[in-house]
Amino acid sequence: MTIAAALLMGLIQAAAAAPQTPEPPTPASIVAGAPRSDWRSIPAGDLLVMDLAPEGGKPRRVVIQLVPAPFASGWTANMRRLAAAHWWDGTAVVRVQDNYVTQWGDPTEKKPMPPGIEPVPESAYVTPLDTVADARPSIEARDLADVDARARRLLDTAIRGTVTPRAPQGWHERDSYAEWVELLDGWPIAADKSSAWMPHCYGMVGVGRNLSPDTGTGAELYTVIGQAPRHLDRNIAIVGRVISGMEYLSSLKRGTGDLGFYKTPGERTPIVSVRLGSDLPAGQRPAFEYLATDSDSFAAYAAARANRRDAFFNRPAGGVDICNLTVPIRAMK
Amino acid sequence: MTIAAALLMGLIQAAAAAPQTPEPPTPASIVAGAPRSDWRSIPAGDLLVMDLAPEGGKPRRVVIQLVPAPFASGWTANMRRLAAAHWWDGTAVVRVQDNYVTQWGDPTEKKPMPPGIEPVPESAYVTPLDTVADARPSIEARDLADVDARARRLLDTAIRGTVTPRAPQGWHERDSYAEWVELLDGWPIAADKSSAWMPHCYGMVGVGRNLSPDTGTGAELYTVIGQAPRHLDRNIAIVGRVISGMEYLSSLKRGTGDLGFYKTPGERTPIVSVRLGSDLPAGQRPAFEYLATDSDSFAAYAAARANRRDAFFNRPAGGVDICNLTVPIRAMK
Repeated sequence: MTIAAALLMGLIQAAAAAPQTPEPPTPASIVAGAPRSDWRSIPAGDLLVMDLAPEGGKPRRVVIQLVPAPFASGWTANMRRLAAAHWWDGTAVVRVQDNYVTQWGDPTEKKPMPPGIEPVPESAYVTPLDTVADARPSIEARDLADVDARARRLLDTAIRGTVTPRAPQGWHERDSYAEWVELLDGWPIAADKSSAWMPHCYGMVGVGRNLSPDTGTGAELYTVIGQAPRHLDRNIAIVGRVISGMEYLSSLKRGTGDLGFYKTPGERTPIVSVRLGSDLPAGQRPAFEYLATDSDSFAAYAAARANRRDAFFNRPAGGVDICNLTVPIRAMK
Repeated sequence: MTIAAALLMGLIQAAAAAPQTPEPPTPASIVAGAPRSDWRSIPAGDLLVMDLAPEGGKPRRVVIQLVPAPFASGWTANMRRLAAAHWWDGTAVVRVQDNYVTQWGDPTEKKPMPPGIEPVPESAYVTPLDTVADARPSIEARDLADVDARARRLLDTAIRGTVTPRAPQGWHERDSYAEWVELLDGWPIAADKSSAWMPHCYGMVGVGRNLSPDTGTGAELYTVIGQAPRHLDRNIAIVGRVISGMEYLSSLKRGTGDLGFYKTPGERTPIVSVRLGSDLPAGQRPAFEYLATDSDSFAAYAAARANRRDAFFNRPAGGVDICNLTVPIRAMK
């Protein structure tokens, strides 16, 4: 592969610049250089480990991080019970619709639920800002709940197209689906004046449901495999995100039935098992960390995502969509 | 499949509502009901037909629509020459990076170019608004070039979060990467005060290149397979979009090398041939139509994409991202 191909359109991971002129930092180089203190560990008890049937003898492990309380707590409680009951073992990926979702669950739709699975009200699609601030003591949560501060920042963003306290290089985030978007304790958040919810970004996991007032139990799940279908925000519960193995769900053959459902059982991908990470034997528990979204490293990363100044780029964008400001997550050995 | 699964999170294609209460229109039902006069045919001479190697005996045909003049004309002229010379025959898909791009071209990077391939200047990444309005006589192009009208609409969007002339139900489009986004003659457009460019939406096709001042020839191409990487806008030429067969590019195995390049030649997907649609025998020429973006049908479709009111939805979004306002395209038999 020549240098042309190696540099093409991506993060520059090897040092390619001449030694005399240091390359401006890239998002990847900022993440790589972040101090240990800017990383936060993800409890194994907040992770679902889903093993798809191996392909060509190779394992296909997907790791899903559950959203933190107070978001979607009713559904994630159900999901913990379903994992503890091994309910998903023997289910399958049943639907893959291009530029939309990959969905999994019980193809028979007749499998009995374990005890304790409770319906969740539609009101839980969003979370009041006061509840967020009470439940999460971070600076970010307080900032989210401070309507006056948010209004000032929104006005800056809308009118002057720049400037938030954590964007020292000047950039904006304008969103067609929410009054305000933010990062909160490692997650993307959308909000209006009174409540917050998690946006349908690539890799986010949501709960399949029937028509209102049904809200789904958390047994039937999907993940976003294309442009963020944000029109689903506030209409479906977001309960997690895929933090490892996303390629096993995004690269599956698209279904040829209506809405991308597979027409024949043989096309489905079997799910061997789903376990809560903390229920795995000690040596097998998943260990991941995320870059703290209130850290200086994250501020620099966000500014670089919004304004690429490394050699490949002629013109920095000046802004970034909330679904392009992916929170860095790394596996620990 | 139960009704729960059939209705799940998608376009409702079968009549599921009780006959007494007509279902509000969906984007799909509006498109299905659009009169013949609201459709425009796409000339076969604006289409590239790319045949990947069959898989399991099944053909894999991808159809790419080239962007219209005056956008990226230097690169599309090169691409027409490359297709006429059968240059892509025997090349391959060399890179698939999850949530980013699928890329194809000559793996050896040594294949000689046919005569007439010309370098294109970086200035052509954007097109002056006056040039757009001169070259494209549509109402939409005039509207795009009218800076005063655009400024008024932008202010409405930014401040009041609603109302454009073609959004009778009230909705907004706010964009982090451009001052203005619009539809123009069937294509998504982003613009600032002086020039326009095409955004990196899902399925759009761009030109791989080396570092500046190289701009690529159009021989090495990629398409977007995830969340729109809009930071590439104005840094790389957009030359087309995949209008059929996208699933053959988006569902390929992700590469495990740096930037998603395949580590071994055996992982690459061979490209059998690429032809300009008008160079195919009469019976094989591709025939597609798009829904005119200045039609009443499109206005209703856009409003419905921004504000879903059919049975599945509890809460309309009130807005839509330019990369979620996909222009309807249909194959003609």
